[in-house]
Amino acid sequence: MTNNKDINAGIIIIGNEILSGRTKDTNTSTLAIWLNSLGIKVEEVRVIPDVESIIVDTVNLFRKKFKYVFTSGGIGPTHDDITSESISKAFNITYGAHEEAFKILEKYYKPGEFNEGRQKMAYMPIKASLILNPTSGAPGFYVENVFCLPGVPSILKAMLGGIQNKIVGGEPILSHTINLRTVESEIAKSLSEVQNKNTDVEIGSYPFFRAGKLGVSLVLRSTDQNKINNCNSEILKFVQEKKIQIVDEG
Amino acid sequence: MTNNKDINAGIIIIGNEILSGRTKDTNTSTLAIWLNSLGIKVEEVRVIPDVESIIVDTVNLFRKKFKYVFTSGGIGPTHDDITSESISKAFNITYGAHEEAFKILEKYYKPGEFNEGRQKMAYMPIKASLILNPTSGAPGFYVENVFCLPGVPSILKAMLGGIQNKIVGGEPILSHTINLRTVESEIAKSLSEVQNKNTDVEIGSYPFFRAGKLGVSLVLRSTDQNKINNCNSEILKFVQEKKIQIVDEG
Repeated sequence: MTNNKDINAGIIIIGNEILSGRTKDTNTSTLAIWLNSLGIKVEEVRVIPDVESIIVDTVNLFRKKFKYVFTSGGIGPTHDDITSESISKAFNITYGAHEEAFKILEKYYKPGEFNEGRQKMAYMPIKASLILNPTSGAPGFYVENVFCLPGVPSILKAMLGGIQNKIVGGEPILSHTINLRTVESEIAKSLSEVQNKNTDVEIGSYPFFRAGKLGVSLVLRSTDQNKINNCNSEILKFVQEKKIQIVDEG
Repeated sequence: MTNNKDINAGIIIIGNEILSGRTKDTNTSTLAIWLNSLGIKVEEVRVIPDVESIIVDTVNLFRKKFKYVFTSGGIGPTHDDITSESISKAFNITYGAHEEAFKILEKYYKPGEFNEGRQKMAYMPIKASLILNPTSGAPGFYVENVFCLPGVPSILKAMLGGIQNKIVGGEPILSHTINLRTVESEIAKSLSEVQNKNTDVEIGSYPFFRAGKLGVSLVLRSTDQNKINNCNSEILKFVQEKKIQIVDEG
């Protein structure tokens, strides 16, 4: 198995609706949780507008920088959907009607309903491999290490199953969360000492407000369950000493 | 008033919890909606990990590329909060106890409670200007055009009021939304024609599923209300011709 450090991913969220604040991006979270379960760490996310030159440049940068690249958005039928054409340019592959995609869509629609707008969804780099869409017909696609998915969260989610076997992951990234009834400044020093002793475990500290009460979530992440357990014991030790209430753990 | 094209912003979301998928970012949307109301367009968002060199490089790139830069996350008291120190390095300003911030925090806590962890929240570029925090004491700060805000969404939101007068905006970006009971492929061609005739209006098309029914939201954005109105009329014309139901508009 390859070292986990070499198995990383970058996500490119394409769409003015995220940059305008109109839509909150949830695809990053969906992709990251799924990738983590395959042992792939997301190292960077960029949200960029529907502008061809920016999409081309970002894709060309990311596909060299990361083992896997996922794009979300811009593969629909309307004028603002320019991802497929931009990916063609990035890879210098002809943009045209993809034979297999065209057949799938032609079959999906009733006779006479496969209009120009719908045909556009078969336009992509003609040599791309398809990502089947169990929800709504129009497929996504991938070229080399760049996987192009739609922006609609439910459709994106439904398509992940179809690419799982195209991806070679690493050791799954495990995590353990401890929720404490405290504030960060109360535990910062002790936590820092534990982090310094456990450099293979990434300890994140996140304040939360739940049911009107303050708390802190500590999240321990590593590919090694024993290391997480050791780190956890050291945290529980200072938590006990400081008489801090544990809200829950798991 | 400066041309709106020169008044842009970039957002840097700092935090492993977003990259791991554990937390869904909502600060981008909060910042973007607020910035739009000030006539400032968000052109790029990057989500990056809690790694000093990446924070320094991204901040130094963004502060040249955009008129305003906003960072979110990493200014708390724990070991994984490294934004303040990274910003000091990016600007080559001493990282130390900020006199005014120290006074604010000293006053905020009860005598004897201003411990090491809490004091860390006064550490930042010593020449930074403060962004007051009406919610929980610990201030944010800005250096030149880079505004550093916390990651906790409610605290970030509460701090925006305090920087409104530090920012010179442009003409507000206006928008109009038409929700239609249709699918994108039904209107793609007509919409494309309207977009080609109305190049000063940005038309976004977004499929939605609401109460089990499919629909499309068309969002028209421009600084000019008349241009939005004209564009809107042209859309309503083809909507009527195609006998598409308007769900709502506004």
